Amino acid sequence: MTHTPAPAPAAPLYLDCDTGVDDSLALGYLLASPEIDLVGVGSVSGNVGARQGAVNTLDLLALAGRDDVPVAVGAHDPVAGGYDGGVPHIHGRNGVGDVILPPSGRAPEDGSAVELLLRLSHEHAGRLRVVAVGPLTNLALALRADPTLPERVRDLTVMGGAALHPGNVSPVGEANIANDPEAAATVLEADWDVTLVPLDVTMANLLEETDRKALLEAGTALAPWLGEVLDLYFGFHVPTFGRRCSALHDPLAAAIAVGGVTPTVAPRVPVVVDVTDGPGRGQTLCDLRGRYAGYPDVPGARTRVVLATDAPLAPHLVERLRTL
Amino acid sequence: MTHTPAPAPAAPLYLDCDTGVDDSLALGYLLASPEIDLVGVGSVSGNVGARQGAVNTLDLLALAGRDDVPVAVGAHDPVAGGYDGGVPHIHGRNGVGDVILPPSGRAPEDGSAVELLLRLSHEHAGRLRVVAVGPLTNLALALRADPTLPERVRDLTVMGGAALHPGNVSPVGEANIANDPEAAATVLEADWDVTLVPLDVTMANLLEETDRKALLEAGTALAPWLGEVLDLYFGFHVPTFGRRCSALHDPLAAAIAVGGVTPTVAPRVPVVVDVTDGPGRGQTLCDLRGRYAGYPDVPGARTRVVLATDAPLAPHLVERLRTL
Repeated sequence: MTHTPAPAPAAPLYLDCDTGVDDSLALGYLLASPEIDLVGVGSVSGNVGARQGAVNTLDLLALAGRDDVPVAVGAHDPVAGGYDGGVPHIHGRNGVGDVILPPSGRAPEDGSAVELLLRLSHEHAGRLRVVAVGPLTNLALALRADPTLPERVRDLTVMGGAALHPGNVSPVGEANIANDPEAAATVLEADWDVTLVPLDVTMANLLEETDRKALLEAGTALAPWLGEVLDLYFGFHVPTFGRRCSALHDPLAAAIAVGGVTPTVAPRVPVVVDVTDGPGRGQTLCDLRGRYAGYPDVPGARTRVVLATDAPLAPHLVERLRTL
Repeated sequence: MTHTPAPAPAAPLYLDCDTGVDDSLALGYLLASPEIDLVGVGSVSGNVGARQGAVNTLDLLALAGRDDVPVAVGAHDPVAGGYDGGVPHIHGRNGVGDVILPPSGRAPEDGSAVELLLRLSHEHAGRLRVVAVGPLTNLALALRADPTLPERVRDLTVMGGAALHPGNVSPVGEANIANDPEAAATVLEADWDVTLVPLDVTMANLLEETDRKALLEAGTALAPWLGEVLDLYFGFHVPTFGRRCSALHDPLAAAIAVGGVTPTVAPRVPVVVDVTDGPGRGQTLCDLRGRYAGYPDVPGARTRVVLATDAPLAPHLVERLRTL
C-alpha cells in the first residue's frame, strides 16, 4: 500500500484589483488554482473606476460559477488627489475591452473593500494571503484603519513598479504605483513581507495570438470571454512590441503568489516610493546596487523585488484558464 | 602612384574634470589620441576639490611632457549648496590614490575654467569639442555667463547618470550628476547635442590587474604613474566586483568622444534631471520607453544616452596609455 500525502489545504487569498483586462486574467488564474481559495475581492480605481471594477469582477465570477466569492467596492480616489478617469484606450471604457459581459445580477457587498479585507484578516488570521494588482489605495486605507493588519496577513504580493526598467506612465513610473504613490509608500513601509512584481518581469511575459485563440476555443464558460476581452488590449500593445500581444502584468503577480511561477532573482532590498511632485513621482526606487555581487539581500529589507523568474507564464496561464 | 589621404586635422577638445583616478586615465587617453588636440582643461570639485584637481592635472600633463596645455581652476561649489568634500576612500585624499606625483611646478591659468572654456569656444568656434567627466558646474556657469556657447561647440560628451542601471551614490543617483543636479539640468536643457555616457556602460568596462601591470611596466614617462595611481581605486572596487579592478567611467566617455569606442545602442531621448529634494535627487530620468521597439530616437530630443558599445575599452585604452 502506498499513501498519497494529503494535499496542502488551499490558502485563503484576498485579491485587490482594478478590473481591467489583465486583472481579469489574474482573477481567472486564481479561480483555476487549487493551491488557493479566493475568499474575497476588493476593487479600486485604476484601469477603471472602483465601482465598474467591482461590476466586472462580479460578472467574471458569475461566468466561472463562483457567485460565492464576496466582492466589495473600494476607494474611488487615491489617498491624495482625485481619480484620473482611467485608460479607456487600453482597457476599454468599461475596463473589459468594451466587451459586454453577461451581467451577473449580483450586487457588491454592503461594506467597503477595506472592511472586507479587515474582516477576512480576522477570519483567516495568520493565514490570509493578499495579492494586489491595482493601485494600493485600499491597502493603505486598511493599514490606516487598523495598523495591526500585517500581523494577520501571511504575505502580500504586489504587481507594481519598475526597478531597472522603463516605466509605463512616465519614464520611471508604473501605473499601479503612480496612480497612488502615497498609498504605495504606506504599504511598502508597513510591517510585512512584500513581493513586488515590477515591469522588469511583467513586460518579459507575453501572451500571443495563439494563446488568445486557445482561450477563445476552450469550449468552457469563462475562458472564451477572456479571449474576447483581450482583443482591444492586444491592439494597444502593437506600438510597443510590433505585433498584437499582451504583457502579463497582473497574472504574473498572481502566479508568483500561487507558486505557478518561481522567482529566480528576487533580492530583498530597500524600496522607496517617490511621493514628490518632481519628475520621478510614483517611481519605486529599488536599491539594487548589489547588482555585480549577485544581488544579495539587504539586511532589514522587507520587500522582495522580482527581477527574473524560472519559466514563461503564458503556457501555464493558458492551461489553467482553459479549465474555466 | 597612389595617394594617401591626408589625415583629418586633430579636433580641438576641452576637457572638464575632477581629477580623480579615472579622470587621470581619461586625460592620458586624450593626450595619446591623435584624433584630437587637447587645447585646455578645466577643473571642478567632485572626486577632489577643484584646486587639487587642477594641481593633479598639471602634474600629469608635466609627466606627459605637455606643459603647453592650459589648465584652469573651476568652481569649488555646486551651483546650489556647498561642496561635500569628495571621496578620499575612493580616489585618495589627493585625488590620485594618495600617490605623490612629481610636482609640475606650473601654475594654473589666472582665469577660471569658465573663462578658459569661453575663450576656447571663440578661438575654435564651431569646431571645439567638449568632454565633461566631473560635475557639470563649470558648464552650467559658462552657459549662464554666455548662453550663445552652444553655437560654438561642435559636441559635448558627458560621463554621468544612470539610465536602466543602479546609481553609485544612491539607488538611482550617479556621482557626477548627483554632485550638482541643478548644473546638470542646465546643461541638458541647453541648445546642444549631448552624448551621455552613464553607468549602464561604464560599469560594463573594467580594467583588470593585468592591465594595470601593463601600465606599470610600460617603461614610459606617464603610464607607470597611472598604474600606481590605480592601486587604491582597484581596492575600492573589491566589494562591488569581488576582485581588484576598476570601472572605466571617465575614459569611456573620452573614448566615445574620440571614436575609439563606438556606441551601438544610443537613442536620442528626453533626459530630465531630478532636482527635487526627494529620494530621486540627482537621477537622470531617461525616457527609454522605446525599449521593445529597438529604442527609436524621440523626435526633438538632443541627448543621446549610450546603452551599449561595440567593443571593450580596456585593451584600446591600455594600448594608447602605454605610449605616454
